[in-house]
Amino acid sequence: MSPLVTSENRDGTPESPIVKRILIGDPLASENADEHLLPKRMALPIFASDALSSVAYAPQEMLMILLTGGLAFLAFAPWVAAAVVLLLVVVVLSYRQLIRAYPSGGGDYEVARKNLGEVPGVIVASALLVDYVLTVAVSTASGVDNIISAIPALNKWRVELAVVCVLGIVVMNLRGVREASRAFAIPTYVFIGSVGVMVVTGLVRTFLGVAPVASSAQYALHAQSISQAAVLLLVLRAFSSGCSALTGVEAVSNGVQAFRRPKIGNARTTLAAMGGIAATMFVGLVALALISRVQYAENPCDLAGFDCHGTPQPSLMAQLAAATFGMNSIPFFIVQAATACVLLLAANTAFNGFPLLGAVLARDGYAPKALNTRGDRLVYSNGMIVLGVAATVVLVIYRANLSNLIQLYIIGVFVSFSLGQIGMIRHWIRGLRRIRELPDDARAQESARRQSRSYRKGLAINSVGATLTVTVLVIVTITKFTHGAWLVFLAIPILSTLMMGVYRYYRDVEHETRMDDTVHFGSAGDIALVLVNRLQKPVAKALDYALAARHEKTLAVHVAVTKEESKSLQKAWQEHGMPVPLVTIESPFRSYAGPVIAFIKQYREEHGSSVVTVYLPQYIVGHWWERVLHNRRARRMAQQLMLVHGVTITLVPWLLDSSELIYGRRSRPVPGQTRAGFPTTPQLPYDHEPRRGNRP
Amino acid sequence: MSPLVTSENRDGTPESPIVKRILIGDPLASENADEHLLPKRMALPIFASDALSSVAYAPQEMLMILLTGGLAFLAFAPWVAAAVVLLLVVVVLSYRQLIRAYPSGGGDYEVARKNLGEVPGVIVASALLVDYVLTVAVSTASGVDNIISAIPALNKWRVELAVVCVLGIVVMNLRGVREASRAFAIPTYVFIGSVGVMVVTGLVRTFLGVAPVASSAQYALHAQSISQAAVLLLVLRAFSSGCSALTGVEAVSNGVQAFRRPKIGNARTTLAAMGGIAATMFVGLVALALISRVQYAENPCDLAGFDCHGTPQPSLMAQLAAATFGMNSIPFFIVQAATACVLLLAANTAFNGFPLLGAVLARDGYAPKALNTRGDRLVYSNGMIVLGVAATVVLVIYRANLSNLIQLYIIGVFVSFSLGQIGMIRHWIRGLRRIRELPDDARAQESARRQSRSYRKGLAINSVGATLTVTVLVIVTITKFTHGAWLVFLAIPILSTLMMGVYRYYRDVEHETRMDDTVHFGSAGDIALVLVNRLQKPVAKALDYALAARHEKTLAVHVAVTKEESKSLQKAWQEHGMPVPLVTIESPFRSYAGPVIAFIKQYREEHGSSVVTVYLPQYIVGHWWERVLHNRRARRMAQQLMLVHGVTITLVPWLLDSSELIYGRRSRPVPGQTRAGFPTTPQLPYDHEPRRGNRP
Repeated sequence: MSPLVTSENRDGTPESPIVKRILIGDPLASENADEHLLPKRMALPIFASDALSSVAYAPQEMLMILLTGGLAFLAFAPWVAAAVVLLLVVVVLSYRQLIRAYPSGGGDYEVARKNLGEVPGVIVASALLVDYVLTVAVSTASGVDNIISAIPALNKWRVELAVVCVLGIVVMNLRGVREASRAFAIPTYVFIGSVGVMVVTGLVRTFLGVAPVASSAQYALHAQSISQAAVLLLVLRAFSSGCSALTGVEAVSNGVQAFRRPKIGNARTTLAAMGGIAATMFVGLVALALISRVQYAENPCDLAGFDCHGTPQPSLMAQLAAATFGMNSIPFFIVQAATACVLLLAANTAFNGFPLLGAVLARDGYAPKALNTRGDRLVYSNGMIVLGVAATVVLVIYRANLSNLIQLYIIGVFVSFSLGQIGMIRHWIRGLRRIRELPDDARAQESARRQSRSYRKGLAINSVGATLTVTVLVIVTITKFTHGAWLVFLAIPILSTLMMGVYRYYRDVEHETRMDDTVHFGSAGDIALVLVNRLQKPVAKALDYALAARHEKTLAVHVAVTKEESKSLQKAWQEHGMPVPLVTIESPFRSYAGPVIAFIKQYREEHGSSVVTVYLPQYIVGHWWERVLHNRRARRMAQQLMLVHGVTITLVPWLLDSSELIYGRRSRPVPGQTRAGFPTTPQLPYDHEPRRGNRP
Repeated sequence: MSPLVTSENRDGTPESPIVKRILIGDPLASENADEHLLPKRMALPIFASDALSSVAYAPQEMLMILLTGGLAFLAFAPWVAAAVVLLLVVVVLSYRQLIRAYPSGGGDYEVARKNLGEVPGVIVASALLVDYVLTVAVSTASGVDNIISAIPALNKWRVELAVVCVLGIVVMNLRGVREASRAFAIPTYVFIGSVGVMVVTGLVRTFLGVAPVASSAQYALHAQSISQAAVLLLVLRAFSSGCSALTGVEAVSNGVQAFRRPKIGNARTTLAAMGGIAATMFVGLVALALISRVQYAENPCDLAGFDCHGTPQPSLMAQLAAATFGMNSIPFFIVQAATACVLLLAANTAFNGFPLLGAVLARDGYAPKALNTRGDRLVYSNGMIVLGVAATVVLVIYRANLSNLIQLYIIGVFVSFSLGQIGMIRHWIRGLRRIRELPDDARAQESARRQSRSYRKGLAINSVGATLTVTVLVIVTITKFTHGAWLVFLAIPILSTLMMGVYRYYRDVEHETRMDDTVHFGSAGDIALVLVNRLQKPVAKALDYALAARHEKTLAVHVAVTKEESKSLQKAWQEHGMPVPLVTIESPFRSYAGPVIAFIKQYREEHGSSVVTVYLPQYIVGHWWERVLHNRRARRMAQQLMLVHGVTITLVPWLLDSSELIYGRRSRPVPGQTRAGFPTTPQLPYDHEPRRGNRP
């Protein structure tokens, strides 16, 4: 019996414990769900912060890979960046189609499952779940990296800082969507604004001939010697890392239901705005990095002259801000603070998407039903907790190292991108086929023609999208597999198999418990056994309630482990004139359940089949520590007796005085006196005989 | 519902799960307890290994303290060693008196409680508990130190090694006393023998003029400059550390009940033998260390010439064995292996003493009753687990560093020594007073005279013991307090307060639940509510059992969170012609318990006071992971409904097919068909009306 259980008020409003209430806020009724919908200006920071924040690390990781080949490779940078932007545009356009066709919030998962079947759907779901975890990990790691770039003294607390950030986000999200978005809108806009100002300032300075110069420009970079064949691979690797700028685009399509009406229109507009802003920032940052000659090394010790053991390597964003505005200037700190904030917001995006997807999966039977339980604050608490724990584990294992984490990233995104796009192609083709199968007159109508045009447009866009995303998936797989991405290729099938297993399990249980013609009623025979250890008030209460339920027969049963106990009980039983016969069973093995089970079997052999109700008095306590002081015998008894055919367990609670502190009541007055405020008339002692025979 | 519960056979023998059975062994009946008693030759290694193993570290720690003052201080070593041996002899003699007077196994705790009162008893108990934990920690740390001295490559796994050792000991002890002692007898005797051979060999070599020389003799020791006043303090500190040789003497007095008959005689003989062996070994090792000029530094870097960063400092035992037999010779490894084994056996001693003391405390109401529950193997499993966890925590916190741990040690031992001895003085004085108050003729009898003599002897011995142990306690406190022992002085009062609190708690609960004149029977009114979510077989079973119990009124109650659910349930209810009326309650807050509680209150207002039995169908599963897939709604409902006045919970188990794998049965055949092998006659549908009125 947990004393931490949530008690409830008379009207059925759950009454939260104080700590929970402070952290999470008051519970909300179902009808209030609509008020929590997001206007566009709020939805943008929530759902777009993932994609926007990617520009904080995508340029850095892209340039870092190019620089492993040497400074000369920076010549490829504009072309790689252009390819990334092109891909971004195509993906955004593709997702605008997806939102239009599937606004229910299942995103790629729903598209793949409805159009391609169960297995692709589950694969997409697994890929997305993995990626949500990695989004939290990567964004937090990058956010912490930017904090450390501004305050290098924090370097030794990198992992701890990351874990604290994740915990903070979990708590914030458990408080609910609206509060989260309000707090989150400002830093996203500050991030967009400050990066914009930084890029413009940098470009203006360049035109004025005082181009910013990064602090790392002074170091001589140790470059690997690269063979002719490896050049292409290096460029493709840089492109793969640059593609991390695309992560989070799908967040909007998974969150359409959180938008204010018209949901679809608002979601599509938000998606377009997000794509435009992200592309502009990405291009601007890469340009500024090239102008200020930033050098960012995979291993900081490759930078000759850099104190790689003493100082953390500043992030690209920090180097640009320092070069543009001056190190430790106020704008520098604004850029760093905004970048860190928006990266943590991106982690927050996953806390919106993951529980929604988890709930959709639970609804469809692929995930534990507990994920579809709305928490007190209308959000899916269990999913958030799972995500928080998983991300924390990943961060701790990878010591919050961004460059290692990024190797695992975006595989999942492109798996779901690709399957989603292929599913959309199927969707449009089906739609067109449906129109073609219409009777001629219906097909000739304007509405059908308009629909057909719209379907064709969708088909065209998603075909381009599918081609590109599949190509990129192949590139990403080739270039990242040996750098750690194999882990993701291990995780996705494992998760998929688990989901299929869960589905099959629920199906089997459903089948097993389905009502059918074999079910009929009429169990006969009924005996109540009240378990007695010592004669105390809780036992008296259980006896009283057993008598009140008027079973055919009521017996008190004592399991005698020591003879002294049993003798003193029999004495007390006579002294107090207990109205029920006491049966004593010997227990040589100090076991409690075993002898009772043997007794039940023997009783049935003598008296015939019967339903046996075992009454167990149970203490209810006011403090968690009191549980340590009561042994769990009653609970273990219940667990073992429940395995016996035809046995049910009746728990008769006895609220100790201490429970009053928490639940506001205790088991007073003593049994049989008054109940629920009504006095009961005292009765004669029970006559031991089955009622049935006694009544006239 | 835990699927890990132990099922039971028909005859009441608990049937352990396979894993548990392999690790812990089969359960034993109470009658077999006698067969597990120990003969002296087995009891010596079990109860004496603590005291004997102390000689593995006591000389080292004693010499280490003296050496902090410089080589010249070694001149004090023989005198300090002599003082330690004298103290050991006195304490052994004192404990032989204690065993005679209090053979029940409570040791110093019982003596203090019976003679000095509750508070001293509880203080002794706390001191002993703390010391059991430290015995495990110190012995394991020293054992691991000796393993590392033989295999220096293991140095970086020091803490992990220590934790693994503790875990191994816990598992071995959970298997029971006899198996433990058998495995443990050999290394103890090998230890005594090999150390004996080593000392004799060393002395013989010295007489032959080829005295052994320790490897550390070559290093120049950086000594602190010591003021005149500090000399005494240093000598006293060395004495304090040397006193760690006395730890474990009390183990025998706490374990008298585990000895074979005559328990008292055997225990006293064992204690004397142990004292003699320990004293001899201690003297021999100190002598050999002085002869071979071993240098052992608190901080290994104080040894000029020693690679203090690269190599672990070898233990004194390892240095002596290497000097006597040659480094990495076979006898060297035998000595090291035996030393490590016997130190781990010493840790094992605590696993005999701690649970026994815990059980005694639980019996007296000072500790949670769960500590007095004999486990499957006739030993006190809960106490062992508590001790294992506590020792592991201490080892991890102190990084298994012997010299730091030893600072916390022996305070507790001397607290209990002192209070025990004082208690014994009181005991003898009381005995003498009793004899003096006898009538003259009885007093003159031979038996009384003999008793009086024996009491006087006891009084004399324990008075000397008390004087010495109190003196040593003062010395130990002064010299160790600032070196970490303050922690123990914090822990003892905290533990004592907790124990007093537990005692008061049990007393209050006892008072609260005691039968008295206010208890009378005759609760009236009786209604059964069967909670229904969807119409499935488990619900049908619950309904059937509720009907079989013939409550005055039986209602099916559905908490409607969504309208669709509720409609489809009502449809199914009619289709299957369920024999009980269905009540639907709206729940706007997605709460389940709240609306049911409100319904109960409303029902009582309309129909008067009643005992309400809530039927909850409950799944029982076969695998732990299945629990994740079923939401805990039924359990949470039960927890909340049990807080309502006059409500009892009846759990109707439904064993899923998977449970067959573990429990050998499932909820087949369907409800109402057969039960316990007896066919039931099908009956007409239930008539909804209270039975009472219907019967003629």
